[in-house]
Amino acid sequence: MIVIKMGGSIFGKEEKLLADAAKLGEPFVLVHGGAAETTNLAERMGVKVEQITSPEGFKSRRTTREMIEIFMMAVAGKINKSLVARLQKLGVNAVGLCGMDGSMLRAKRKILTSLENGKTKMIRDDYTGKIEKVDAKLLQILLREGFAPVVAPITLSEEFEPLNSDGDRSAAMIASAIRAQRLVLLTDVDGYYENFPQGLVARMSASQIEDAIKKATGGMKRKLLAAREALSGGVGEVIIANGTVDSPISSALSGKGTHISK
Amino acid sequence: MIVIKMGGSIFGKEEKLLADAAKLGEPFVLVHGGAAETTNLAERMGVKVEQITSPEGFKSRRTTREMIEIFMMAVAGKINKSLVARLQKLGVNAVGLCGMDGSMLRAKRKILTSLENGKTKMIRDDYTGKIEKVDAKLLQILLREGFAPVVAPITLSEEFEPLNSDGDRSAAMIASAIRAQRLVLLTDVDGYYENFPQGLVARMSASQIEDAIKKATGGMKRKLLAAREALSGGVGEVIIANGTVDSPISSALSGKGTHISK
Repeated sequence: MIVIKMGGSIFGKEEKLLADAAKLGEPFVLVHGGAAETTNLAERMGVKVEQITSPEGFKSRRTTREMIEIFMMAVAGKINKSLVARLQKLGVNAVGLCGMDGSMLRAKRKILTSLENGKTKMIRDDYTGKIEKVDAKLLQILLREGFAPVVAPITLSEEFEPLNSDGDRSAAMIASAIRAQRLVLLTDVDGYYENFPQGLVARMSASQIEDAIKKATGGMKRKLLAAREALSGGVGEVIIANGTVDSPISSALSGKGTHISK
Repeated sequence: MIVIKMGGSIFGKEEKLLADAAKLGEPFVLVHGGAAETTNLAERMGVKVEQITSPEGFKSRRTTREMIEIFMMAVAGKINKSLVARLQKLGVNAVGLCGMDGSMLRAKRKILTSLENGKTKMIRDDYTGKIEKVDAKLLQILLREGFAPVVAPITLSEEFEPLNSDGDRSAAMIASAIRAQRLVLLTDVDGYYENFPQGLVARMSASQIEDAIKKATGGMKRKLLAAREALSGGVGEVIIANGTVDSPISSALSGKGTHISK
């Protein structure tokens, strides 16, 4: 059993990834992002996209009530169902879901802190959430019956509102919950670099990951945090690799990218 | 087992319907439309919505390649997942799907004929489809395991493209395939009228339906065609009723609306 996370930056360039997934010969769950597509849709609708920067320097998109609906449309509507159609064409019996389906991913709404002109501001009405509980029943049933779940990282809050959750963390939580042997985080670079574009790291132990988390920023930091979460949840190996190359999943499984294990 | 079809016109006024569904005490599938929401989104995106009229007088929205993506976003993204969140809040373990998931609804692309200034024009590049095959496996598994499937009428073409299919017909085909005893088509009027707003018909036999199909127009004609399809597919009873009243499903089951049976 394998969980594959396809970064939003790959959407539109996912042919090789899907063709490879179809030939894996192993049950899989595909988790995907969709930040770029959400921004595109918001702009086409004339909705302003607000960026916030946390005091720790994390940049993220503000998810207002209007933006969570746009996120649902772009990610659960367009990307998720396009991937399902393509996988079906490749002979994979895909089922498109989001984390609200079957109450799969339950999350707690985040209170964001934003640094504006040197001042810290609290944002309490954001629709982003930190996953707190995974109910793997739906995924396990689908996998057992031969379906390939495709999951958009929209989660259900304690008050039953839709929330935007990080795709890498969603994939990590799912991988732990279904006891996947491997989690493959596919992005648009070849793996974790000590000093990008120098020093691609081929292997990393759980102890080395702490150092890397401190050094990394943005998307790579989130991937490393997700990797640590998956390993402590019992996943045997996490691989960060390039999802845009030929046979990206099987290459990653046979050695490409950054392999992280305990 | 019961299949409920919620017309797109009810979206935004579905609180009573969902609360009633949650109290049914019987497994159900909820099929929904979303034409109005699709038009809203297209307008917000600055995409022109083209109406076509068939030589028989059927009005429909032209579904271009761009419009099927908008349909996916509005219907499978926003409406479907909103309904899932609300049902989860009501204690129903809902799972949001579209007809492409699990290859559930396979359709054939329609060649549309449009009447323009007295001339008939063939439209071959429309993304609407007539359902030809239903694979009920995914729905049956979910129902057996205690989930409530919520289905958007997006179907998969022979070439594995997403198609826009009629929601009432989708519900009818699903009801036959899962051997539902009853199909409840909920709309914003009280049932079938002989001469609207006069002459609400309480009961109709399969022989009377032919006459009604000839007389009816627009959405009601489509509902009657769907009813005929469901009955010939083995569904025991089809009810056309108002989905915006108090306890709309249980009232329909206990006598309100137009009851159609063989």
